[in-house]
Amino acid sequence: MSQHLQAALDYARQHEADFLAGLQEILSFGSISTSEEHLEEIEKTAQWVARRLERLGMENVAVMPTGGHPVVYAEWLGAPGKPTMLVYGHYDVQPVDPLDLWQTEPFTATLKGENLYARGASDMKGQVMACLNAIEAVTQTGKLPVNVKFLIEGEEEIGSPSLPAWIEANKQLLQADFCLNPDAGMLGKDHPTITYGLRGLASFELTVSGPDHDLHSGVFGGTVHNPAKALVELLAGMHDENNHITLPGYYDSVRPLSDDERAHLAKLPVGDNFIKQQTGVPEVWGETGYTSVERAGGRPTLEINGMISGFTGTGQKTIIPSSAMAKITCRLVPDQEPEQVYEQMKRYLDEKAPKTIRWDLKMYGGGRASISDIHKPWVTALEKAMETVWGTPPLFKREGGSVPVVGMMQSAMGMESVLTGFGLPDDNLHAPNEKTHLPTWYKGTETLIRFFFGL
Amino acid sequence: MSQHLQAALDYARQHEADFLAGLQEILSFGSISTSEEHLEEIEKTAQWVARRLERLGMENVAVMPTGGHPVVYAEWLGAPGKPTMLVYGHYDVQPVDPLDLWQTEPFTATLKGENLYARGASDMKGQVMACLNAIEAVTQTGKLPVNVKFLIEGEEEIGSPSLPAWIEANKQLLQADFCLNPDAGMLGKDHPTITYGLRGLASFELTVSGPDHDLHSGVFGGTVHNPAKALVELLAGMHDENNHITLPGYYDSVRPLSDDERAHLAKLPVGDNFIKQQTGVPEVWGETGYTSVERAGGRPTLEINGMISGFTGTGQKTIIPSSAMAKITCRLVPDQEPEQVYEQMKRYLDEKAPKTIRWDLKMYGGGRASISDIHKPWVTALEKAMETVWGTPPLFKREGGSVPVVGMMQSAMGMESVLTGFGLPDDNLHAPNEKTHLPTWYKGTETLIRFFFGL
Repeated sequence: MSQHLQAALDYARQHEADFLAGLQEILSFGSISTSEEHLEEIEKTAQWVARRLERLGMENVAVMPTGGHPVVYAEWLGAPGKPTMLVYGHYDVQPVDPLDLWQTEPFTATLKGENLYARGASDMKGQVMACLNAIEAVTQTGKLPVNVKFLIEGEEEIGSPSLPAWIEANKQLLQADFCLNPDAGMLGKDHPTITYGLRGLASFELTVSGPDHDLHSGVFGGTVHNPAKALVELLAGMHDENNHITLPGYYDSVRPLSDDERAHLAKLPVGDNFIKQQTGVPEVWGETGYTSVERAGGRPTLEINGMISGFTGTGQKTIIPSSAMAKITCRLVPDQEPEQVYEQMKRYLDEKAPKTIRWDLKMYGGGRASISDIHKPWVTALEKAMETVWGTPPLFKREGGSVPVVGMMQSAMGMESVLTGFGLPDDNLHAPNEKTHLPTWYKGTETLIRFFFGL
Repeated sequence: MSQHLQAALDYARQHEADFLAGLQEILSFGSISTSEEHLEEIEKTAQWVARRLERLGMENVAVMPTGGHPVVYAEWLGAPGKPTMLVYGHYDVQPVDPLDLWQTEPFTATLKGENLYARGASDMKGQVMACLNAIEAVTQTGKLPVNVKFLIEGEEEIGSPSLPAWIEANKQLLQADFCLNPDAGMLGKDHPTITYGLRGLASFELTVSGPDHDLHSGVFGGTVHNPAKALVELLAGMHDENNHITLPGYYDSVRPLSDDERAHLAKLPVGDNFIKQQTGVPEVWGETGYTSVERAGGRPTLEINGMISGFTGTGQKTIIPSSAMAKITCRLVPDQEPEQVYEQMKRYLDEKAPKTIRWDLKMYGGGRASISDIHKPWVTALEKAMETVWGTPPLFKREGGSVPVVGMMQSAMGMESVLTGFGLPDDNLHAPNEKTHLPTWYKGTETLIRFFFGL
């Protein structure tokens, strides 16, 4: 082992308390990107990240405007002949509702045993800080053995609407050999994981309306189509009895799972029991003909993310509500196109919606799925670093989540991403009581340090 | 015409402004009965009604406690040999949400043209005040030609949970020849109406739950049954393709409409176009094999009154919600029993709910439907009064709404109710911008005065 690597690893171990303090600091910002109310917190977080990158000796640090929330850019290119790595991250977080289910304040990072609880602790301020801490350990003990660029965006949780144009406009600036994207997680604390496939996303809001005001359910009940009823009929019909999605043409461009891949996925330690443990559901569910692992990574979905209509307070209110709304997202696999799915859903509604109601479909955004080559040198370097730290080789998996930026890097610059991360399946991503497991997080920093030296 | 009747009618005409001011006063109380927050307003309203009854010369006026909100009782029994009429009313009102759809403050009665806008203007503070004003006109110009008792409750909009026990305990006090219940409406401003049938009600809350927290729809999408999805499947299945309700045994005790009655109902001026005009729906809807009028009054329903699950704010949140809830009410016809319907819904859920989710069904309350004999003398008296005031005989209809107290009076005391009222179909009952049409309301007062003298 090089002296510098050893010094960097020692530095990281000695500064765990400082690293934790830094994480707590960035987690104190309520950088929720879904609504306008948090713009100031978004701006503060971007500035905080920029100052931190400057402190690490990064150059050309800039908080760069986009059409929406700013991107933090930084670079250090002092390692001629070495590869250049573009580190991707996002500093924005999901909303925190339902707030009453949080056991601690979402923006006051709270230590309980080995876990740190806060919105963004795992997704993904924790992962961004693991990268920054690894850089700090290396730069405080010598020179980086690799060239590095940073792209830390603020719109990931809303589907990165401003990023495609921004990347397009900054292609030259972003040139690199590969992208390190630590926005994917691990399959368990003893299972370091490299993700080679990601699902895409298409996101919708469907509103059904009928009467122009809420009606007395006694006076009009039985004579008009209840919009909540019409909505549930339309939603229920979007899957058949085998839990296949019924949007016309939905599976036409779905790339089938090969027998090889199915055999490989069968080895992952995430069977039905794992899912039951992680979620508390009484039984697993899904498309007939596929295992849970196959369904989670290799098959598309259609989910209701939220639904509202009429009176939902205490007691009863005997109305026929005038409208009903559902938020829907489809997770996509290669080679589905988000815009195609929008057309398929419109066709479904055109064909199925009755004349007794009106409907409106809004598309929020989307991104394509992606699949990467796992034999590239940077993948091998990460694989080795993980094996050293955990004493076991990483698992290779297809991830059910969506990281639209991976598709953007691919299509705009032909750049492949190596996807990893140190979050765990029970980190409560996008849910109350999000947390990160600190011993795993420290291992992540060590892994990244070793990775930099292995490139 | 008797001199006294003429004097009472003159008094009513001369005091229209005072009557309006009184109505505006009672409408200023936010006596919403569905939630605990409005207890003080409930109490204030009951006291206001009691003071008003005292001012009219009523005796033994009392705000009487029940298990829930108080009942206002009053009587005047100074007309020996004359019938005794029990006037039923309720001083509570529906909630006001969605508040942003109101064009005026719901508890600041606002005059616009011939209409007065406020929550309760039509349902039913307006009707209660029409009775009190009629009594005032008669007592200020002489002695009442009829004995009268008042029962004004505060829980009608939550299904009158405390009333059955209270009536049971006060049977002696409430003895009367018939009940005048002005909580039913008219079919149009030129169509005075007497309602001889009412639907009953059974009210439920159905919750479906799955994962013990909201899940990331990428990580777990395709492997667990989305509770919102499971709920919409269960709700959608509660009607078949003919819009028949599928709860097992639901129609077993439904009394069929006779051919005579169907012929009679066919004469009511409330066809499909009327419903489209009143509601703004593009097409009417309902059970195959019945007309709109038949469906509204003579057939049972199952309606979703409200629904909530997951994220419903601005933007998207890619979760699988941990639970989903729907509020459901069934409108019942003779001879359905609310508790039977509860058992039928439980059986439906037992049979249909998949093992992938958990469900919970709560029953809020209910009441039986009722049908009355339209040849009783008090019905004839009201019929004559209406014909005199409007110049046209009243229509006889079955009402789609539910007035549980009518069933209670029947079962506890064998007392029949004469149902009428001076609200119009476009009064926005239970909805934003509730209003009452003042010229019709004044005619209502005149009708009641003539009715008292005709008994």
